[in-house]
Amino acid sequence: MFESAELGHKISKATYGMEVPKLREALLNAQFDLAQQARFPVIILVGGVDGAGKGETVNLLNEWMDPRHIQVHAMAEHSDEERQHPPMWRYWRALPPRGKIGVFFGSWYTAPIVERALGKIKTGELNQRIAAINHFEAMLSDEGALIIKLWFHLAKDAQKQRLKALEKDPQTRWRVTRLDWERYQQYDKFRQISEHTLRATSSAHAPWLVIEGTDARYRSLTAGRLLLEAMRKRLDHPVTPVPANAPPLQAAIDHLDLFGKLDMTQRLSDKKFAAELEKYQGRLNLLTRDERFARLSVIAVFEGSDAAGKGGAIRRITGALDARHYRIVPVAAPTEEERAQPYLWRFWRHIPRTGRFAIFDRSWYGRVLVERVEKFCSESDWMRAYGEINDFEEQLVENNAVLIKFWLTISKDEQLRRFKEREQIGFKRFKITPDDWRNREKWDDYQTAVCDMVDRTSTAIAPWIIVEANDKNFARIKILRTLCQRIEAAMKKLRQKSVPVTR
Amino acid sequence: MFESAELGHKISKATYGMEVPKLREALLNAQFDLAQQARFPVIILVGGVDGAGKGETVNLLNEWMDPRHIQVHAMAEHSDEERQHPPMWRYWRALPPRGKIGVFFGSWYTAPIVERALGKIKTGELNQRIAAINHFEAMLSDEGALIIKLWFHLAKDAQKQRLKALEKDPQTRWRVTRLDWERYQQYDKFRQISEHTLRATSSAHAPWLVIEGTDARYRSLTAGRLLLEAMRKRLDHPVTPVPANAPPLQAAIDHLDLFGKLDMTQRLSDKKFAAELEKYQGRLNLLTRDERFARLSVIAVFEGSDAAGKGGAIRRITGALDARHYRIVPVAAPTEEERAQPYLWRFWRHIPRTGRFAIFDRSWYGRVLVERVEKFCSESDWMRAYGEINDFEEQLVENNAVLIKFWLTISKDEQLRRFKEREQIGFKRFKITPDDWRNREKWDDYQTAVCDMVDRTSTAIAPWIIVEANDKNFARIKILRTLCQRIEAAMKKLRQKSVPVTR
Repeated sequence: MFESAELGHKISKATYGMEVPKLREALLNAQFDLAQQARFPVIILVGGVDGAGKGETVNLLNEWMDPRHIQVHAMAEHSDEERQHPPMWRYWRALPPRGKIGVFFGSWYTAPIVERALGKIKTGELNQRIAAINHFEAMLSDEGALIIKLWFHLAKDAQKQRLKALEKDPQTRWRVTRLDWERYQQYDKFRQISEHTLRATSSAHAPWLVIEGTDARYRSLTAGRLLLEAMRKRLDHPVTPVPANAPPLQAAIDHLDLFGKLDMTQRLSDKKFAAELEKYQGRLNLLTRDERFARLSVIAVFEGSDAAGKGGAIRRITGALDARHYRIVPVAAPTEEERAQPYLWRFWRHIPRTGRFAIFDRSWYGRVLVERVEKFCSESDWMRAYGEINDFEEQLVENNAVLIKFWLTISKDEQLRRFKEREQIGFKRFKITPDDWRNREKWDDYQTAVCDMVDRTSTAIAPWIIVEANDKNFARIKILRTLCQRIEAAMKKLRQKSVPVTR
Repeated sequence: MFESAELGHKISKATYGMEVPKLREALLNAQFDLAQQARFPVIILVGGVDGAGKGETVNLLNEWMDPRHIQVHAMAEHSDEERQHPPMWRYWRALPPRGKIGVFFGSWYTAPIVERALGKIKTGELNQRIAAINHFEAMLSDEGALIIKLWFHLAKDAQKQRLKALEKDPQTRWRVTRLDWERYQQYDKFRQISEHTLRATSSAHAPWLVIEGTDARYRSLTAGRLLLEAMRKRLDHPVTPVPANAPPLQAAIDHLDLFGKLDMTQRLSDKKFAAELEKYQGRLNLLTRDERFARLSVIAVFEGSDAAGKGGAIRRITGALDARHYRIVPVAAPTEEERAQPYLWRFWRHIPRTGRFAIFDRSWYGRVLVERVEKFCSESDWMRAYGEINDFEEQLVENNAVLIKFWLTISKDEQLRRFKEREQIGFKRFKITPDDWRNREKWDDYQTAVCDMVDRTSTAIAPWIIVEANDKNFARIKILRTLCQRIEAAMKKLRQKSVPVTR
């Protein structure tokens, strides 16, 4: 990986002076076109050897371009808030929107490489992290991002000389720390692990570009040129999406689906409901006040047919909770800001920290439900979404989230009854719109999409709970009971592993 | 993954009788179009629970379609020959060419799932195998293959009933073995591991399709329909390739490359050459007769500028070998059969078994050299080739191949001298063609491509050896010496691990 970056590349002052003005103008033009088109974001990852000029290059790019449209993220120590979220959360919230440039100085590559070099993880674990990175970058690329990965390299001798030179100069002495020299001692190890990682993550959609860092003029001009060419290429040649190898939307040939086997007649009398409600709300309230709750988070997802009673069920939960600890996230059409980001971004931003409770009224599953059925996204978009969602949920659960997904289902007849009722009762009229009637016409398509969703995303760590909701009493108690049971199970597990308290 | 395949799906005899003739006709038409277009191969993977009707379905598909254009591969125990090649070799040689259908009955999924269920590998290892499978299938898909993955499922009770029913019938009793019942005992474990594996390998380009296997009519009709729809979709909607995020072909901005640092004046006198040649040829000969050689294979790759002396160097190696043990693979333009396969197929077929020596006169690196420079393949094709080649070579080395890659380099002046000499000397005239002169005009583009190749594919396990070849004596001895050293190093390593002798 580093052969061509150990040759002692150099650019003369004269050439540099001649080339920079042209490059700056071209970069500014590209940046302008990027903002105008607003079709894709540019994600620049900056990594490499200490002392190879990473920081200088990033500063220079900001100087050369319009810094208002570049966001630089120096990812060093985790903040308190970051530690209470899944590791990738900090990157998700920093992603640039379409039309902008985001520079990640120290990225999702830093931790795996450093931890492997320090012997904290083994090669197998490194390779699993590499696979996760490849998934993540493939998703970014599928969502349209232009990913430019720059690695600044120094040969071993060059690093030594560079650190010494920095130490000699009183103006830069402070920049060389003991950590830099410690890392230098482990140069060979770092080199070998970096090489392996870079090679295994160089894909056609996100190749690593290695730049020799010895000569400041060479590395600056090279970085600028590579950035310019990559942006120009994408600006001038739009990408068309590839169709998926997916089977078309269709029900099983015998028209039997998951819903065909449900007992939709299950009911609970009002009297029994009142007793059970009190019981489970009390239990839930106690659970959230248990000291172990501080080490968990709860994410409850509500999806279901129109008029299936999501709102009512959610109110029965929040009735048992302290308003300071929960948050309801109603998911409607994405905002302008959200549309400028990868699909899952709008959900990542609402992921609760530990000790909190988040309730999603509709969720990321919109991608494989309404967006699929209404063709708001391409077939390959929703086909790859199953895998992306599974990856996403795995990250939540690994971070001690109790993830509970409810699908509230009612019969087609019951839906009609409720629609009509809503139209007749004044205070419920706002709850019924022409959209509801339109969706109802696509009942079968939605049912097929729901079955596919359950088949492809009901996992051991985050199963779907199908709730028979023709009777509201029955549905609400089933939901509350499941919630309590799942939280209790998660707390029991906690006792077994030692997880640091971070609230 | 299996929710919808545990519902007791059924199709009546009447419906079946009505549907099958239509389906057969449509399948035959699709198969005809597939052969006519000859644009892509269809790869069908058949997996699932024992007794779920995998075999019956495959037989039926053969009955319904034209069996002359379907190749069924039942992948059970490894043959002797297969054991002496990397694990994926058996699948590579069985891949169907464009225009044909290949059915893999038991595929690259069987071993990881079974080994995990039997506790032979851990979850981490399973996940690494899953990552490798995802790479492999992405490559097949990028090369144009339509991949259809069918999983036949039975609920636990259904499997028990099915095995009992088969045992009861004297005609099918022989089909139920003790292994089937042993597997049944581990149903839950298999289910959980299969589910994880299927979910992690369901991509937009190769999604798993799960079919309930209880009812023969339902499963046959469903499998046939899915196959038809997937084929029809691809036949009727050609896929256009996506451009890569690659930087355009270009040299370093200071025009310094790997070759700039070589000492091209190194020479060896004829007298010294004769002595060294005898020494190293003797050493090489002894090495190939060492008993440890039977546990290795040697793959020597020769690439280099035109007229750099590959042929002469190869003859100095083969001069030391027993003709029964080596094979020279001259790589020219691909044959018609090879063009109908993924790019690496033509090289996989020549991978030697253990105990053998293969010499590639030009190689798989053509993809990132001539095919890149002459634009015989798309940019994303050669960009992804670096990763594909690294994966490929890793598999060779894991199978105890000593992989040695030589790049023979001569100066531009020396090439001109040799070209002219070839034109003047009668018996060398066949060695110079108009192509050589044309390639020479693209000297700089080729140099850039070579530097990229070395940077991206020179790995710790398979480094590139750059051979300064202006002096033929010097080059030939450097090559022989390196060969001997690399084989000796590999033999030393062998002593440390216990590798079964398989010759």
